[in-house]
Amino acid sequence: MKKHNFSAGPCILPQEVFEQSAAAILDFNGSGLSLLEISHRSKDFVPVMEEARAIVKRLMKLGDEYEVLYLGGGASLQFAMVPFNLMKQNGGHAAYLDTGVWASGAIKEAEKLGKVNIIGSSKAEGYTYIPKNYTAGPEYDYFHCTSNNTIYGTQMKTFPKVDTLMVCDMSSDIFSREMDFSQFDLIYAGAQKNMGPAGVTLVVVKKEILGKTGRNIPSYLDYSLHISKDSMLNTPPVFPVYASLLTLQHLEKNGGIAAAEEKNMAKAALLYREIDRNPLFEGFCAEEDRSLMNVCFKITDETRKEAFDAAWKAAGINGLNGHRSVGGYRASLYNALPLESVKILIDVMKSL
Amino acid sequence: MKKHNFSAGPCILPQEVFEQSAAAILDFNGSGLSLLEISHRSKDFVPVMEEARAIVKRLMKLGDEYEVLYLGGGASLQFAMVPFNLMKQNGGHAAYLDTGVWASGAIKEAEKLGKVNIIGSSKAEGYTYIPKNYTAGPEYDYFHCTSNNTIYGTQMKTFPKVDTLMVCDMSSDIFSREMDFSQFDLIYAGAQKNMGPAGVTLVVVKKEILGKTGRNIPSYLDYSLHISKDSMLNTPPVFPVYASLLTLQHLEKNGGIAAAEEKNMAKAALLYREIDRNPLFEGFCAEEDRSLMNVCFKITDETRKEAFDAAWKAAGINGLNGHRSVGGYRASLYNALPLESVKILIDVMKSL
Repeated sequence: MKKHNFSAGPCILPQEVFEQSAAAILDFNGSGLSLLEISHRSKDFVPVMEEARAIVKRLMKLGDEYEVLYLGGGASLQFAMVPFNLMKQNGGHAAYLDTGVWASGAIKEAEKLGKVNIIGSSKAEGYTYIPKNYTAGPEYDYFHCTSNNTIYGTQMKTFPKVDTLMVCDMSSDIFSREMDFSQFDLIYAGAQKNMGPAGVTLVVVKKEILGKTGRNIPSYLDYSLHISKDSMLNTPPVFPVYASLLTLQHLEKNGGIAAAEEKNMAKAALLYREIDRNPLFEGFCAEEDRSLMNVCFKITDETRKEAFDAAWKAAGINGLNGHRSVGGYRASLYNALPLESVKILIDVMKSL
Repeated sequence: MKKHNFSAGPCILPQEVFEQSAAAILDFNGSGLSLLEISHRSKDFVPVMEEARAIVKRLMKLGDEYEVLYLGGGASLQFAMVPFNLMKQNGGHAAYLDTGVWASGAIKEAEKLGKVNIIGSSKAEGYTYIPKNYTAGPEYDYFHCTSNNTIYGTQMKTFPKVDTLMVCDMSSDIFSREMDFSQFDLIYAGAQKNMGPAGVTLVVVKKEILGKTGRNIPSYLDYSLHISKDSMLNTPPVFPVYASLLTLQHLEKNGGIAAAEEKNMAKAALLYREIDRNPLFEGFCAEEDRSLMNVCFKITDETRKEAFDAAWKAAGINGLNGHRSVGGYRASLYNALPLESVKILIDVMKSL
């Protein structure tokens, strides 16, 4: 039976990516060798890394002032790498927007290296909206925000104009919508939503902002060092990088970010309409901040929960449970999820 | 034509691992979903991580005082994590053995956090042997060594008795030979030689040694935190962990480390015998320190180099060039390399 995969991440990727990456494990580029057994410095893999770096700049329409890295350790390691690279050794001071568990995780790491000012937070209201009307001036080394919050289903629809460096964790909505990416000085994203499998993290950084903190940075945590080695300071996560490249090539071939955004808006509009229409369901968060990626909702009549759960499972739906910290349901509509899967879910919601 | 893959890493893995991991990308456990699109907290993946941790302790015959982690960032991140976790904040002092480029990399990271005493080094002689006759007393927070040096083809045949914590980078010979693993307090290894594909690093650590430095450690760099989350502090590198588990299961099914060692000794003996016998070739390093994993040699008559290169390429041999820093040749004989491949290489060497 066909599965409809609403998993919050790692999540659905294009079927073509599964097929191509599985084939590469059996025989890479007709070389007679598996992708898993070749040197990362071989003539077969170096072009993979080069193209994986180049395609990101094409898709984001960024110029040569930006560098692209593929690193290990996940966004959680970036929580530490950002302050190590951007927060001054003496009198370091950064502004953070607190929009949920992941933003809090980033704040915790920055506080280990300097002073953090939380210039906006929706924590007291269970992170059900995106704080607005704050500013960040040049007294801060940088400003950090999280563009999409998977657990609560909130998303920043616009980004503030700040008078300092602009850093954004885009792990859960990167490549899902058009925007002016040049408004950011540093973007990072764990690959395992819209851009690839788990095990690699994308970093897009403006070169000129680096090397100004006076810190002695652990080598693996030093963006400049990774840049100087073309993202091959050490053996990169070969398979995750390759599968990410395939995912981004699929995106580029199918109309790029603009086409993905159009599809994502259609999927989200359909599902939110049903949640708002159907008295058995209600959304979690402020309407204006609703995420296009993670649609979080609850059931209003707990006595019908069992029937609902049985119905969506019977329909081949997977990964609809909400995060354990908030409960309810979460339908993640990442780039690769077809509109058809959303329609199946809505049919189940209507059938109750 | 059949390939004979002597690549120094990422390197050959059992053919069965390629087949099983490719199949899991198309359909994992008959779930109708790809291994790449399932949650790392799903009922399908949690047992993978649990078994990947458990099998390491079985293979190494280690007890409950040890914990096993699968982390991102490679051994290069471990170079920093070791001192962050073991070197005292005040008056930190560690002893390192310098046996090559990787050991030097580890030393560099430790020096960022405290004082390092290099208690043995073969640097002046091009790292062509393993230093001996040194001691490390309780004045050091820990002693660090590198068990095998891929670039020069040297390997520690025995380990010193030290009066401090014993840390070993086993990236390039882990699971290749039997030893008393309980003599180590911390072992780490990038997976991409004997135990899996690139993108994940194994850490085996004695719990009781952690939490004693007085340091405020970045979360991702904190072994204790990873242990408290069962190696799922954040999304782990799902595919590399799974392929590593398959590789270790293959090892266990085929007689474990003892059987692998026997095969590795046979392969190395055969190849070193030919190098010693054939006047056209000579080894790089001290005989007593010759590695079972990486056999480094040079050609004594440069005018025959072109013919030799053409001959091994024609025989389907891959990855025989020496590291760019030393030149010559390097035949890596990792666990998965069949004896047959070594025989093919020797046939080529004899044919010149």
